[in-house]
Amino acid sequence: MNHAYKEPLIVQEVAPRDGLQIEKQWVETEDKIALIDGLSTCGFTRIEAGSFVSPKAIPALRDGDAVFNGIRREAGVIYVALVPNVKGAERALAARADELNLVMSASQTHNRANMRMSCESSLAGFGDVVRLVERAASKVALNATVATAFGCPFEGRIDEDRVVSIVRTYREMGIAGITLADTTGMANPRQVARLVTRVLEDVPAADLTLHFHNTRGLGLANVLAAYDAGARRFDAALGGLGGCPFAPGASGNICTEDLVNMCEEMGIPTGVDLQKLIALSRTLPALVGHEVSGQVAKAGRNCDLHPVPE
Amino acid sequence: MNHAYKEPLIVQEVAPRDGLQIEKQWVETEDKIALIDGLSTCGFTRIEAGSFVSPKAIPALRDGDAVFNGIRREAGVIYVALVPNVKGAERALAARADELNLVMSASQTHNRANMRMSCESSLAGFGDVVRLVERAASKVALNATVATAFGCPFEGRIDEDRVVSIVRTYREMGIAGITLADTTGMANPRQVARLVTRVLEDVPAADLTLHFHNTRGLGLANVLAAYDAGARRFDAALGGLGGCPFAPGASGNICTEDLVNMCEEMGIPTGVDLQKLIALSRTLPALVGHEVSGQVAKAGRNCDLHPVPE
Repeated sequence: MNHAYKEPLIVQEVAPRDGLQIEKQWVETEDKIALIDGLSTCGFTRIEAGSFVSPKAIPALRDGDAVFNGIRREAGVIYVALVPNVKGAERALAARADELNLVMSASQTHNRANMRMSCESSLAGFGDVVRLVERAASKVALNATVATAFGCPFEGRIDEDRVVSIVRTYREMGIAGITLADTTGMANPRQVARLVTRVLEDVPAADLTLHFHNTRGLGLANVLAAYDAGARRFDAALGGLGGCPFAPGASGNICTEDLVNMCEEMGIPTGVDLQKLIALSRTLPALVGHEVSGQVAKAGRNCDLHPVPE
Repeated sequence: MNHAYKEPLIVQEVAPRDGLQIEKQWVETEDKIALIDGLSTCGFTRIEAGSFVSPKAIPALRDGDAVFNGIRREAGVIYVALVPNVKGAERALAARADELNLVMSASQTHNRANMRMSCESSLAGFGDVVRLVERAASKVALNATVATAFGCPFEGRIDEDRVVSIVRTYREMGIAGITLADTTGMANPRQVARLVTRVLEDVPAADLTLHFHNTRGLGLANVLAAYDAGARRFDAALGGLGGCPFAPGASGNICTEDLVNMCEEMGIPTGVDLQKLIALSRTLPALVGHEVSGQVAKAGRNCDLHPVPE
């Protein structure tokens, strides 16, 4: 346990993308825009605002173009779009996304189930996107995610050498940003410390994002293990939105306000306004039609003291 | 982050006491006994099986005598009873509890609200219990809990010197076992590492228990911080039962199966059978009449792989 918690932790808010994509109740485009506009005032520097995937694959996010065109762009905020292929990348560029996030699973089985193609085909498609972005008129950043980096719900354990090798391939292709994703919440802190240490030998901390799910309750413990190992950037979703199709009722992404609360209590700067975040999170149950898994929006901050009972 | 996770972590199961005490739906005595008997077969060495408090204060546990007299005593399992005072201790001794757990809050305000007396009166009562146990015919162990050791919902921050001083007082009175309790889930890993390190200067690890709630999502991160600092014994409740009257809807105790799963994935031995535990946890919603907050019983273990979708 590192006792010097001075270095900022960067939170990338992903509720509008990884949070909403699994929701059954349709969220109106204007409500998505209002959510993102609200998040833009909370102090985030990065928001994953939507995706440009097939409307058949993810109907909940079929309005990605309208969302990106409707949001108010806050100065200093990078609006990221998830894209599965060059067609999605073209749509994202047209909608003025600041950064494109590509996804491939370390597990071949998971990549076939999720992306309907082999890892080799995914990588070929990434090459097309890299070339598209190189030709683009405006400057667009690239990030690529290694999904199931800490375990696969079909294959089980994932060889760490394979993850390291995929990360190197991404970088060699000209993709600077790297995300290691624990897609179905199988990571543990010991494993996280080990893999993050290895990947940071190849990738500067400023380019590395950790994406944890809280499926088995280990999300924030994994964040701390990664932070202690030198990682500085983390995905999180307001209210802990999101989920896993294989774990009905289980938690989704790590919860942004729970993460920010942990950082505040430990003295780790995030730049995010916790009170605003809690207020925004409390609007989510009405938006998505069910309770959400985040804890701090229910319990309040430590400093929100209670009156002494009579 | 400590990379040598070889030393066993002892889990004290507290669902029958700290879990059930807040439940609104009455749990029949025979169902409590069946739950404890089920837990006794899972490999625990310590189970907090009930309390001997005023039936008016905690009606859900008014059958402590019948529960302790009805359970099957598994060899090697210590059955602990929570007692508030010498009257409760007499009942617990009559019911053949192996260990008595006394409770006082570090916060005067919380102690008055919770125990209806000052800390000074609590300590005087502890002295009566110590003398009662010294005179008892059979050998009974004593433990005392410092509640609100990491924060008070009324007073806020708790002076660490005060916690250390209370621990010393307990030990000087002849109470060997010490529990530091994060009663309303206000602890953070940095604070936990610091306080545990200090308390372990006075108390052997074999005598120290950490009791965390997951009210703000930090339960398992706090366990790891405490373990890394040298603590080896932890309270946890099956299904994450329990709660906090000030945080409706928030999580309760850290969840036993989530804790054991974390340990298994990290290679920390617990001696507890995770599969049995998950099966038992899945009976809880029917027992208490609502979903529970534990994650692993919903998501399964990492090794419970899923069939590849068509």
